Amino acid sequence: MTTQQLTNQILKKKSFLCIGLDVDINKIPQHLLKEKDPIFAFNKAVIDATHHLCVAYKPNTAFYEAYGLKGWKSLEKTINYLKKNYPEIFTIADAKRGDIGNTSKMYAKAFLEDLNFDSITVAPYMGKDSVEPFLTFEGKHTILLALTSNPGAFDFQTKKEGNQELYKQVLEISKTWANSHNLMYVVGATKAEYFQEIRQIIPDSFLLVPGVGAQGGSLQDVCKFGMNSNVGLLINSSRSIIYASSNGDFAQAAMLKARELQHQMEEILKSN
Amino acid sequence: MTTQQLTNQILKKKSFLCIGLDVDINKIPQHLLKEKDPIFAFNKAVIDATHHLCVAYKPNTAFYEAYGLKGWKSLEKTINYLKKNYPEIFTIADAKRGDIGNTSKMYAKAFLEDLNFDSITVAPYMGKDSVEPFLTFEGKHTILLALTSNPGAFDFQTKKEGNQELYKQVLEISKTWANSHNLMYVVGATKAEYFQEIRQIIPDSFLLVPGVGAQGGSLQDVCKFGMNSNVGLLINSSRSIIYASSNGDFAQAAMLKARELQHQMEEILKSN
Repeated sequence: MTTQQLTNQILKKKSFLCIGLDVDINKIPQHLLKEKDPIFAFNKAVIDATHHLCVAYKPNTAFYEAYGLKGWKSLEKTINYLKKNYPEIFTIADAKRGDIGNTSKMYAKAFLEDLNFDSITVAPYMGKDSVEPFLTFEGKHTILLALTSNPGAFDFQTKKEGNQELYKQVLEISKTWANSHNLMYVVGATKAEYFQEIRQIIPDSFLLVPGVGAQGGSLQDVCKFGMNSNVGLLINSSRSIIYASSNGDFAQAAMLKARELQHQMEEILKSN
Repeated sequence: MTTQQLTNQILKKKSFLCIGLDVDINKIPQHLLKEKDPIFAFNKAVIDATHHLCVAYKPNTAFYEAYGLKGWKSLEKTINYLKKNYPEIFTIADAKRGDIGNTSKMYAKAFLEDLNFDSITVAPYMGKDSVEPFLTFEGKHTILLALTSNPGAFDFQTKKEGNQELYKQVLEISKTWANSHNLMYVVGATKAEYFQEIRQIIPDSFLLVPGVGAQGGSLQDVCKFGMNSNVGLLINSSRSIIYASSNGDFAQAAMLKARELQHQMEEILKSN
């Protein structure tokens, strides 16, 4: 999927919502445990109820690997279900991978080719040759961690060389890498005031934004400082949507929560 | 396994060699492709031929995820085979994971509990709360990326705040985290001259050292500057051992290559 197609979807659906499928077997409604594949059953119900309100889904691979072979199967079934039934949806493997060149190439193959995700999140610590193998896939996107939304973001990401924090160096330097047009970035919503400076470095890139809601970030502030002429934002919400109810009505509750966010996004898009 | 037990194994085997099981289906001897699980068959043969010459094995997860469900199964079989037949061996999941707290906890469970690896490599970019969940497993070890052996190491890891490079900040700051006694560090051999300064910050920690041989690092230099009174080093070699021959004699060739390294290590241990 191209970024233009993604923007078109956003304008059509009046939503730039991404729903995180971080499925913990201990948190899903008990009646699903009877199913052959409870995690996939949960995902399918959430997806069917919310797909018209969002433009992207983001399974975090940790929640699938935690269940070994079974979990990997649930992940495969989820991405296949999305590709078959909702091909207009942008899919993100939230894997935060990154390794030496020949190894990153294996990860890229696994997620962008075999599982056929549209994108994957990647950690920048190991530098250029650890990220470039992901960038060679045309029509696919590498979402590089820049400024994350967790407390530990301030341990290293905001360390300064001269006047420039590490996460800004990541933005600047990554622009020089081969096929950098296939880059997007993770920027946490908890620091909305940073978006203005970030947009000076990467005015055109899409940003994947965690941390709105549960983690305290304001949707309005993020949009005010972070939106560009192609919208350029994917706002992620995971737990507050998928665990909106732990009862039989979980899919309906997820839909209502997603609609609430979609309505806010529609208002913001109208006023821009 | 405790670090004391690891040191005991090193002294007993006169070896601090770690063998990287980075198994690419395109590089293994053709006759193995007839096997039901060629990757496991390859690993089993290499392990059986080399286990007396090394103290650790390190499968890199990328090479298993690249084959989806099948690959995950090969990884499970490999770790189970090691645990059952060679319980004295230290096992490393080279996964380079790292995510927000509740997500890192899932990765920790997957690799340290379910797959029962003795250790896992973790990326530091997301800071304290992304690493601490791995450290809560007593008798298990978290091997934090500090200075890697690839060219991209110089993109961010050597950026300075004041006089201190990022990788040294990672060493310093990680010492303050809860259960930091369960930390080890990845330090590439290609910069042997850095080991002296690194040992001033973390005199007692074990270091996992890639980059000897194929990538140009010198074993003698690394030991001269990096060894401590508990040895404190695991020298990794992957491709130069496991792909020493691409014919029917691959396991024997791997053994000979491993023995060559073990002999060098024995000499170094003797002279210390």
